[in-house]
Amino acid sequence: MPEPISGKTVALHNNRESCWIIVHGKVYDVTEFLDEHPGGSKIILKYAGKDATQEYEPIHPPDAITTNLPPEKHLGPVEPDTAEKVVVEITDEEKARQERISNRPPLDEILNLHDFENIAKQVLPEKAWAYYSSAADDEITHRENHAAYHRIWFRPRILRDVTKVDWSTTILGQKSSMPVYISATALGKLGHPDGEINLTRAAAKQGVIQMIPTLASCSFDEIVDAAQPGQVQFFQLYVNRDRAITKKLVQHAESRGVKGLFITVDAPQLGRREKDMRMKFEDADPSVVSSSGSQGVDRSQGAARAISSFIDTALKWDDLKWFKSITKMPLILKGVQCWEDALQAYDFGVAGVVLSNHGGRQLDFARSGIEVLVEVVANLKEKRGLEFPNDKFQLFVDGGVRRATDVIKAVALGATAVGVGRPFLYAFSAYGSEGVEKALQILHDEFEMNMRLLGAPTLKDIVPAMVDASNLQSHIVAVPGDSLYNNNYEGMKYAKLKESKAKL
Amino acid sequence: MPEPISGKTVALHNNRESCWIIVHGKVYDVTEFLDEHPGGSKIILKYAGKDATQEYEPIHPPDAITTNLPPEKHLGPVEPDTAEKVVVEITDEEKARQERISNRPPLDEILNLHDFENIAKQVLPEKAWAYYSSAADDEITHRENHAAYHRIWFRPRILRDVTKVDWSTTILGQKSSMPVYISATALGKLGHPDGEINLTRAAAKQGVIQMIPTLASCSFDEIVDAAQPGQVQFFQLYVNRDRAITKKLVQHAESRGVKGLFITVDAPQLGRREKDMRMKFEDADPSVVSSSGSQGVDRSQGAARAISSFIDTALKWDDLKWFKSITKMPLILKGVQCWEDALQAYDFGVAGVVLSNHGGRQLDFARSGIEVLVEVVANLKEKRGLEFPNDKFQLFVDGGVRRATDVIKAVALGATAVGVGRPFLYAFSAYGSEGVEKALQILHDEFEMNMRLLGAPTLKDIVPAMVDASNLQSHIVAVPGDSLYNNNYEGMKYAKLKESKAKL
Amino acid sequence: MPEPISGKTVALHNNRESCWIIVHGKVYDVTEFLDEHPGGSKIILKYAGKDATQEYEPIHPPDAITTNLPPEKHLGPVEPDTAEKVVVEITDEEKARQERISNRPPLDEILNLHDFENIAKQVLPEKAWAYYSSAADDEITHRENHAAYHRIWFRPRILRDVTKVDWSTTILGQKSSMPVYISATALGKLGHPDGEINLTRAAAKQGVIQMIPTLASCSFDEIVDAAQPGQVQFFQLYVNRDRAITKKLVQHAESRGVKGLFITVDAPQLGRREKDMRMKFEDADPSVVSSSGSQGVDRSQGAARAISSFIDTALKWDDLKWFKSITKMPLILKGVQCWEDALQAYDFGVAGVVLSNHGGRQLDFARSGIEVLVEVVANLKEKRGLEFPNDKFQLFVDGGVRRATDVIKAVALGATAVGVGRPFLYAFSAYGSEGVEKALQILHDEFEMNMRLLGAPTLKDIVPAMVDASNLQSHIVAVPGDSLYNNNYEGMKYAKLKESKAKL
Amino acid sequence: MPEPISGKTVALHNNRESCWIIVHGKVYDVTEFLDEHPGGSKIILKYAGKDATQEYEPIHPPDAITTNLPPEKHLGPVEPDTAEKVVVEITDEEKARQERISNRPPLDEILNLHDFENIAKQVLPEKAWAYYSSAADDEITHRENHAAYHRIWFRPRILRDVTKVDWSTTILGQKSSMPVYISATALGKLGHPDGEINLTRAAAKQGVIQMIPTLASCSFDEIVDAAQPGQVQFFQLYVNRDRAITKKLVQHAESRGVKGLFITVDAPQLGRREKDMRMKFEDADPSVVSSSGSQGVDRSQGAARAISSFIDTALKWDDLKWFKSITKMPLILKGVQCWEDALQAYDFGVAGVVLSNHGGRQLDFARSGIEVLVEVVANLKEKRGLEFPNDKFQLFVDGGVRRATDVIKAVALGATAVGVGRPFLYAFSAYGSEGVEKALQILHDEFEMNMRLLGAPTLKDIVPAMVDASNLQSHIVAVPGDSLYNNNYEGMKYAKLKESKAKL
Repeated sequence: MPEPISGKTVALHNNRESCWIIVHGKVYDVTEFLDEHPGGSKIILKYAGKDATQEYEPIHPPDAITTNLPPEKHLGPVEPDTAEKVVVEITDEEKARQERISNRPPLDEILNLHDFENIAKQVLPEKAWAYYSSAADDEITHRENHAAYHRIWFRPRILRDVTKVDWSTTILGQKSSMPVYISATALGKLGHPDGEINLTRAAAKQGVIQMIPTLASCSFDEIVDAAQPGQVQFFQLYVNRDRAITKKLVQHAESRGVKGLFITVDAPQLGRREKDMRMKFEDADPSVVSSSGSQGVDRSQGAARAISSFIDTALKWDDLKWFKSITKMPLILKGVQCWEDALQAYDFGVAGVVLSNHGGRQLDFARSGIEVLVEVVANLKEKRGLEFPNDKFQLFVDGGVRRATDVIKAVALGATAVGVGRPFLYAFSAYGSEGVEKALQILHDEFEMNMRLLGAPTLKDIVPAMVDASNLQSHIVAVPGDSLYNNNYEGMKYAKLKESKAKL
Repeated sequence: MPEPISGKTVALHNNRESCWIIVHGKVYDVTEFLDEHPGGSKIILKYAGKDATQEYEPIHPPDAITTNLPPEKHLGPVEPDTAEKVVVEITDEEKARQERISNRPPLDEILNLHDFENIAKQVLPEKAWAYYSSAADDEITHRENHAAYHRIWFRPRILRDVTKVDWSTTILGQKSSMPVYISATALGKLGHPDGEINLTRAAAKQGVIQMIPTLASCSFDEIVDAAQPGQVQFFQLYVNRDRAITKKLVQHAESRGVKGLFITVDAPQLGRREKDMRMKFEDADPSVVSSSGSQGVDRSQGAARAISSFIDTALKWDDLKWFKSITKMPLILKGVQCWEDALQAYDFGVAGVVLSNHGGRQLDFARSGIEVLVEVVANLKEKRGLEFPNDKFQLFVDGGVRRATDVIKAVALGATAVGVGRPFLYAFSAYGSEGVEKALQILHDEFEMNMRLLGAPTLKDIVPAMVDASNLQSHIVAVPGDSLYNNNYEGMKYAKLKESKAKL
Repeated sequence: MPEPISGKTVALHNNRESCWIIVHGKVYDVTEFLDEHPGGSKIILKYAGKDATQEYEPIHPPDAITTNLPPEKHLGPVEPDTAEKVVVEITDEEKARQERISNRPPLDEILNLHDFENIAKQVLPEKAWAYYSSAADDEITHRENHAAYHRIWFRPRILRDVTKVDWSTTILGQKSSMPVYISATALGKLGHPDGEINLTRAAAKQGVIQMIPTLASCSFDEIVDAAQPGQVQFFQLYVNRDRAITKKLVQHAESRGVKGLFITVDAPQLGRREKDMRMKFEDADPSVVSSSGSQGVDRSQGAARAISSFIDTALKWDDLKWFKSITKMPLILKGVQCWEDALQAYDFGVAGVVLSNHGGRQLDFARSGIEVLVEVVANLKEKRGLEFPNDKFQLFVDGGVRRATDVIKAVALGATAVGVGRPFLYAFSAYGSEGVEKALQILHDEFEMNMRLLGAPTLKDIVPAMVDASNLQSHIVAVPGDSLYNNNYEGMKYAKLKESKAKL
Repeated sequence: MPEPISGKTVALHNNRESCWIIVHGKVYDVTEFLDEHPGGSKIILKYAGKDATQEYEPIHPPDAITTNLPPEKHLGPVEPDTAEKVVVEITDEEKARQERISNRPPLDEILNLHDFENIAKQVLPEKAWAYYSSAADDEITHRENHAAYHRIWFRPRILRDVTKVDWSTTILGQKSSMPVYISATALGKLGHPDGEINLTRAAAKQGVIQMIPTLASCSFDEIVDAAQPGQVQFFQLYVNRDRAITKKLVQHAESRGVKGLFITVDAPQLGRREKDMRMKFEDADPSVVSSSGSQGVDRSQGAARAISSFIDTALKWDDLKWFKSITKMPLILKGVQCWEDALQAYDFGVAGVVLSNHGGRQLDFARSGIEVLVEVVANLKEKRGLEFPNDKFQLFVDGGVRRATDVIKAVALGATAVGVGRPFLYAFSAYGSEGVEKALQILHDEFEMNMRLLGAPTLKDIVPAMVDASNLQSHIVAVPGDSLYNNNYEGMKYAKLKESKAKL
């Protein structure tokens, strides 16, 4: 246990060359970490030589700094009451944002999941919005995920008794009030001080299952502790190249009662998300940026590298045997993107796969999960005789879901359940736990309505013949427009009011 | 017969906790009905404790309040001349609307059905426009209904004698001057004080058949009474879970001479129409809205639930036998959406089906009627040897029709006739009965022109080979745009006038 | 020969009830013709009781009034110098238009046919622009005509000697400097005082063939007289229900040396062109419009009916025998729209067909000529063993052509030549005869360039394998947009200049 | 050696009728060249009778004037210090441009190749931007080149060891750090004073191969001299109709160590690029333009003709034998556009082909190289049993590439490497050599990321099954919009903030 360090000493290390900060009463040397900080170096330099706890706390898991900094950078405790205080100034922009927050419409006026995203866009700090909403490269896959659902159309049935409709199901043997689970998303405290716990609370009330992310802002135990007795939780795992750490995480999760382990297999490296990267530049220390040329530090991948440096790029199929040896939780591969890998996963005996492209945040032009679902179902039927939905080998999809109709389409095509991520992030960013609850309630309402209209009293009644997915694989990009012809063309006009006092 | 109630007594019940109103000289306790009122509670609260007749009359069928309120809420007559009067204030917005009404272009300038919609949008009260124009969820199906017709193209024939062209037909054995009928739509008085009677009058003049809606603003008998001798009317039925009520309605309709019973089978519950729902919020009592959170009353489905609560969610195929036992009217199922159900309907011996998705107001991503028509014709030919159009089992479609060419496409593909709803609503909302007449006259003109140009002197000459519908099933959503590439691209430019005084 | 009428007497007939006008020194009673005047009644009423020659002359063929008015309305000569003069006022709008005319860019700056249309749009009187540019119903077919060419792509060949490229051809046995002819279009004087003669002159200079329209503004003989010795002209014929008139026209054309008779078969009635119809309303006598309701005169089809009333709606295949009996000119059917009719035309022994939908001005949703070409070629090959281009039975297409590449595509697919209409109208409307010449010269330049790049030294070398037309039949209408999702999405952004003084 | 000419004498030839200029101390008579100058006549006339060296130097190869002017126009040396100086005025527009240049964001903020284009658009002189960015006709093919890649989607594999990923390859036996080469583009000094040498320097640093263009602004030897020892360069050849010149060029290139000869076969004549042509008009001498009518000099093809007049339009397959006789460099045909020609090229024994449409600058509606690749691979496999990528006969594509994912798609489909042209032009126009280096570095980053995410440790692991290119041939142009219907439709709206202080 080192000697306490005086605040005055800390205050000397207040620049790029030597940068110490105080968090929760301890002093850390973050000089070498500056360029890897996901939030950019500028925000740290603001607290160089000072106490950063107030800024740090709401957006980091308690152990973030200890995990990311090597032990030799932990310099020891600060002498109480000697550290320099930082007065947080509130910018005009921030004031306007606070006003927007207080002007949010009442939850009653939120009618669909799109509304949450719209409110979140207005009330989130820009940086948080950029982090949550960004995706890989040109964000084509990100939007395709949603667009793909629009190529699937319904073939509803009539004159069936739909007085009672039941959209509850079981996921990996666990009850869920709907064929939807809350998918893992990182850094929840960027959107709301309670972070992922917002999801835990709402999941309890609405009877759905939450998947706890490895990169949560709240610590794993905080999230598990927030659960109600009997509440089911899954765990999403980024596999560490240090398998001992992974083993500890997994076995701890199992011991805390987690019911399913979703191993992420689509992220050996985190994707380039340019909106997020641009935000870091704007926020960065201008003196640094202007002096750096092509010889300078390459900070363009700072965030991704910092977060993902521990992820094992060498994870292989054979490692699944090891996972089976360290846990009895059902194993699910998250991020399967073609039938060949789904087949291999089945042959390896895992409990299921999530057909996912990581919300469009990894490889641009990866296909949507819903599109992959069709080929997986067809090939596993042909090659292994499986029917879906299938309790022994469950198929999940995620990405782009905004309506219960989207979920119903996935179920019709063979999915057991659908993961929803960003919409719940936006819901709690806008309204906290109540927002997530409302979002789930909206989905319930939509399920009730749409299953009635589809003529399907239960999920089992939602059969493949109820959808027409024959256009799902159409990736059409139109021939570029002929601007000369098109601009010459004058559109049709309506009969006009005598005086031009048109309303619209 | 209870004692008359003094206006002063009524005036005491002027709030949310106890809300009485007077309509047509009778007192009603509507306290519990407030949140279910399709028009929102605010408008009722405005008349709490007062005489609401003046506001009530133009937009409700005479028996609306007696049907919707249980008998114990009928408190009895008011003492004459004791009730408090309400002075209706005219807002600036309403004044502007009235001015737009007086500035409508003369009917001669209306050239197509789109014109009516455009005028209606400008002269309708916002709430009425929202109710009429809204559709389910993201309104994809609503617009697809129209778009689908644009995927069907003509193969016209030449050098045929088209001096005389005849587009008259028979529908369920009844003469119609064109293969179009006026489909059932609810709440006509929102658009015009004469409500559905506008349609009755115009139908008589132009020789088409009106389908009377269950949810008309005018009472059934008012509409039948408005018909000319010999004028044919059909009846659209929402089946009540109390079959005695349904039986009474049906047998009354038959006794009044109705020639066809269209049983709605696509609406066990009325759809979520968010434009309509948002209108109610804006109009709602602000004090209530702001105090309600997620624990508050869920009023988001008020309108749909209030209107549709009587509809039987358990209606089944076997019930058709009962219908045959209570009426000799031809039975038609309205809202069939796949060939399997059309086949079943045929096997059950009904007179026809309407291939319809309820104008896009029920299940979003239901396919257009015109698309379903193609699979129905193909499968009923293959499995039952039927040819279409077929007098024994008639196929109708509705939704999205704006031009005679749309109707002609449906006829070419096997439909007997096409239902048109909103365009006639918009026509009378803009110009009353004369508007509907003009709309029908425009269709007549278009039929004459287009049948000549198609080389088809009669409807029988409009054969399948006259259309190319091979792209009808293409539900294409383009790959999302590459905004960086596209924004970098500069469009082509024209040679420029020497001075930039361009007209356009 | 009636007595001359005094100008004072004429001046008494100066209103709707009795309207006389003077043209070229003769008095006409046009009272009953007012509502049928293609240009609207207002412009005639302006000259009621007065001498209209100055206004009449530039936009009518000399015999227009004598042809359209029955003999009993020809009242006789006016007494010289007694008629009231009309001073033509120049409006501000007209002054601005004249200024735009004088600001036209020099012809050298015109780089393509689109440029002419753009200039014409700015310098034409609104009414003329509306008449020329309008098309049927929603103008879908009009634009599809152009769009269809964009679905055809080239497969160019390399390493061929293209030092000399030759795009001359023969059309119906007549030499043409390119596989393009000037198609018939009506009312040329609306755009330029010399009307169709602009085309005659330019055609002579550039060695192309002009098709003379029945509804020209210049008289047939004026147009033929303007031709150079040896210049080839065709004649487009609307068949009159009075066959004696048609016989006279046809035999006169033959006697004047016309080399081909194009019988229009797609216009038993002229289409509804709403832009044109709206123009007439705006221009109409306001007192009349406001007093007319649905009972009023239906003037909405005035123009079309007035122009087309003489066209025989009963023209049949058998009539072709009669045509063969009255002329030896090659007969071509203009307006064939499916292979079945092309086959029948071949079997009837005509010299060719124009696959055309009348520039989109007749039946909306008729397919483009280029699309029909593919099915005609395939079926005539299969059923009659024909190869195309074929000298014995020539195929032409028109509609939507703007570039030599469009023409080359048609030739590759089997067309002998392509008709171009509006672009030449726009060219002379903007620059008179020189404009048309320039337009043809641009096409020549484009032919030279593109045949070189295609590796085709002559038209014979342009073979079907040089194009990929496999998407030609795709009539795609995308699934309607999801506005909530799309509006939430924020596009990608570029790196920004330090100060936001961006150029664009 | 002629006598020196006095500056005063030169000064007399200062107009259109006789125009002399001084460059590098020599006098030239450019009177007849004025209308053929690619940069327009105006800029030359500005220096008529004066010393133009300062303006000439940065944008012309040293031998440009000697090559383009016949010897008799080389009038001899000027007497030193007698020539009139020209003071170059800086326009406001130019000042603004200079300011934009100094406000460029630091290179660190450039995240993708689109950024360079965006900066270049802002900092390039308008004329340079027009020349670089323009393409043929309506620029459909130009944009299709990029769009086509968006129709190809990935099928990534998981659980493969991607710790080390290697995207290096060999091109024509030469090492390249990535499957990308710098394609030939003309007139590099328009964008940056160092012209093509920017590319040479960056290529050296990043280990890629530069293809030297025939029409470079720097001379061939300057570019070769700038290379590092061992740095590989290719040479792009426009074949001169004077084969002696071509032979000299080719053998000189070989003697200087060039490792591959890319013979351009898609440009017997340079395409019509209207943006470029319009720029010349705006820039031209106004007095000339206004006086020229259709009889005037046709200057509309000046630029293309001037640059390309030497190109042999008669180049044939047999000429390849001659090329083989004069050089041992591998021969590659650049501009092959169908499988038939690729097959012929293979049979002629060349080393490979570039499937290219010249960046969309030649024949509009030529298909994209990536689309042609698929048919070439399929047919050469079927007809010659070849597998691709193939070292003996290499396939290259160029056009439209902006992301490493584009390149990876091409490699998956059988390409050895991909040519990138404009993006590097834009990179050095914006930032000189460092810009190109950064662009290459971005591609490296993208390769690393995307190969990991695709599960492909080396280029060999990128197999056809990793892409879905089934929509590549879809050339869809949507049915034209129905403006009346679409404009009537009101989009959905979100729940609103209480006060409308929305951020966006």
